[in-house]
Amino acid sequence: MRLLEDRAAREAVATDRSGHRPDTLPDAVVRARNVDDVVETLRWASAHRTPVVTRGAGSGLAAGSSAHAGQVVLDVSGMDRIVEIRPDDQVAVVEPGVLTADLDAAAGEHGLFYAPDPASAAISSIGGNIATNAGGLRCAKYGVTRDAVLGLDLVLADGRRVATGRQTVKGVAGYDLTSLVVGSEGTLAVVVGATLRLRPKPLETATLAAHFDDVVAAAAAAAAITSARLQPSVLELVDAVTLEAVDAARGSSLRSLGAAALVVQCDGRGALAEIEAVGQVVAPFATTWRATTDPVEAEELLAARRAGLPALEATGDVFIEDVAVPRSKLAEAVAGIQAISARTGVRIATIAHAGDGNLHPIVVVERGATVTEGPPWEAACAVFDLALRLGGTLTGEHGVGLLKRTWLRAELGEDSLDLQHRIKAVFDPLGILNPGKGI
Amino acid sequence: MRLLEDRAAREAVATDRSGHRPDTLPDAVVRARNVDDVVETLRWASAHRTPVVTRGAGSGLAAGSSAHAGQVVLDVSGMDRIVEIRPDDQVAVVEPGVLTADLDAAAGEHGLFYAPDPASAAISSIGGNIATNAGGLRCAKYGVTRDAVLGLDLVLADGRRVATGRQTVKGVAGYDLTSLVVGSEGTLAVVVGATLRLRPKPLETATLAAHFDDVVAAAAAAAAITSARLQPSVLELVDAVTLEAVDAARGSSLRSLGAAALVVQCDGRGALAEIEAVGQVVAPFATTWRATTDPVEAEELLAARRAGLPALEATGDVFIEDVAVPRSKLAEAVAGIQAISARTGVRIATIAHAGDGNLHPIVVVERGATVTEGPPWEAACAVFDLALRLGGTLTGEHGVGLLKRTWLRAELGEDSLDLQHRIKAVFDPLGILNPGKGI
Repeated sequence: MRLLEDRAAREAVATDRSGHRPDTLPDAVVRARNVDDVVETLRWASAHRTPVVTRGAGSGLAAGSSAHAGQVVLDVSGMDRIVEIRPDDQVAVVEPGVLTADLDAAAGEHGLFYAPDPASAAISSIGGNIATNAGGLRCAKYGVTRDAVLGLDLVLADGRRVATGRQTVKGVAGYDLTSLVVGSEGTLAVVVGATLRLRPKPLETATLAAHFDDVVAAAAAAAAITSARLQPSVLELVDAVTLEAVDAARGSSLRSLGAAALVVQCDGRGALAEIEAVGQVVAPFATTWRATTDPVEAEELLAARRAGLPALEATGDVFIEDVAVPRSKLAEAVAGIQAISARTGVRIATIAHAGDGNLHPIVVVERGATVTEGPPWEAACAVFDLALRLGGTLTGEHGVGLLKRTWLRAELGEDSLDLQHRIKAVFDPLGILNPGKGI
Repeated sequence: MRLLEDRAAREAVATDRSGHRPDTLPDAVVRARNVDDVVETLRWASAHRTPVVTRGAGSGLAAGSSAHAGQVVLDVSGMDRIVEIRPDDQVAVVEPGVLTADLDAAAGEHGLFYAPDPASAAISSIGGNIATNAGGLRCAKYGVTRDAVLGLDLVLADGRRVATGRQTVKGVAGYDLTSLVVGSEGTLAVVVGATLRLRPKPLETATLAAHFDDVVAAAAAAAAITSARLQPSVLELVDAVTLEAVDAARGSSLRSLGAAALVVQCDGRGALAEIEAVGQVVAPFATTWRATTDPVEAEELLAARRAGLPALEATGDVFIEDVAVPRSKLAEAVAGIQAISARTGVRIATIAHAGDGNLHPIVVVERGATVTEGPPWEAACAVFDLALRLGGTLTGEHGVGLLKRTWLRAELGEDSLDLQHRIKAVFDPLGILNPGKGI
């Protein structure tokens, strides 16, 4: 364990990738190397009633790991061992600091994969994925982080260790504390280990890209894919603002093919037949579409999606929302976001996990400008309001963090929030775990 | 709402299908017709501090809905409306008394299905499925009840109504109260409505039955299927005791083909190719195997599994366990159960969801004999002990109920159980909801 109090160390852990900038710095950083370090830190924090902000790779998008004066940051990114992969059980046991993409690669050596694949997989850690119940591109077919977590090793606020869940894929002994802690954003306990479900790698993959005159046609095509009972593993929508940024960054001319695109992947036996069926469904809506089973060509088709966020980030500072709506409301949500952008004059690009109704409206401001106040934040709040009006949620996969907390009551209601605060008190009676975040 | 106090009505709701017989009868039965009935009952029960045992179809296997003197049974089986099916969102909204098979059939009219399929689907209700986090045959591929529940409408112990979850397939706003209530066996709140995820019906299905000289070879073949990265939707193991009962009941001669069988189903595009790959994997282990895409022939192959439990029930009274072990321990578990049967002289048949390591050791006693005491119960307890020693769990999908409660501490440990009791107190401070069950 290393305890650091110098300014540079504290600045490095003050916030995440949300764009939020706390006014002050945390008092200190503990770099934990093992479970004992975490136990010791929490015992000390309990004794001194000092708030602890647990931090993984710092890739969060809701300021869930931002910290300020009077708080200590518990950095578990150094606890990064893949403890065990048991191919016969299709299970991995990991420490929280393991990067998501590293686990996926290690599973790949056994013909397996780790399904949750947030766009941040190369830079985000499993612990952070668990804290926010991270999703990703493949979760339309394979579920989110919660669906992949079989059990957790926790350190409670008072330093006691508790194991939740099990080593088996099924089990109903006791309440589901595992699911309760997944998505709890560091407010209930510190995750020091996780038993994760792996899945067999699909034998075949096929990829399609389709372009459309407008984003409403693209959303309608996505809905038609779902209605046709097809089950892509990836079904992503990209709007004109994003396509223009990608073209500027890569010298491509995607925008000339239409004002919106869908990128679709099918996998498993029969992937090619399924992608061809997708092609037949999208054809009446599309200006053009193309499908391939060639991996190199597939990467080219995926570029419109994968290059989207980096391309937008190259044009300014961003705040990435992740509202979700019922799948049938996707077109309405996309049109509503465009109207908000037009009304407020704030630049908003939209990328969406269309397969599960999860949208990423990306508010883009000039480099150095603050995203989380003034007109950009008002536009972001109008998007929250839109999502709730469409029967949706504030956050599909990024978490509430600090930034969405004022909106939470509107979504959950008084009685539900009251239950949640009392559950928080069961786990953390002194209120020292990431106070002011999540609920 | 009807309040019944006559003896016949109270006898009809005193227990479930576990074999447990309470010494006394509950004081009364409330037959709820709508949410207001439930609210009124719980307000009255809170005011009078009277314990309430919520009951669906009464098909439980762990005495989770058994009730005794001093308790009132709240029967919600009459709240049986499918409120809405929204095909475009692949979502159903139902009341708790809807029978599982009825929901699946209604979804089928839209080309969709409801994935959880406990063997009791024709007689068990969604509310009970939620209470126990029911599994079934298809959950190896499609997950358990918890994976299908997007949101719940609850009535709390004090009569307040709270909604959990959402209408969207993804969402992380607030703690996951939905997953907490799923599997909580009526101890946290009364479920009066559920928003459920439906899935597209697979376009193709292929079925295989294979027979083996002994059950260890069958378990090894099941493990080999998993290791080969194949993903059957159904992967069931049936032992010799069960095959003999099926032969006696149906006049078949399955036992002559071997001392154990596997029944396998693959679905989706490429189902036939996948089942053929399954055949190649099991062939070295099997005495004989056969695959088909013909629906009538498929039903015949499935009969060894589907007819198993009714055939055993025709030979005596049964207690059905549902321990689960890591998938790689399946053969060891099956061998251990056989050893327990030999050592105790108690007849135990085994059917297993081999795809997820979930076993159903079925203790069979003479008609009218009590399963839950004496040597039969000692044998059942030896199976619990075996499962825990193999790194498994007491219950994969039936719940803890009354009967497995004494074993719970051994599985969960003191600190975890303490957390769970304190969570129970958050929801039900007076302790009136199904006391003595679950945790």
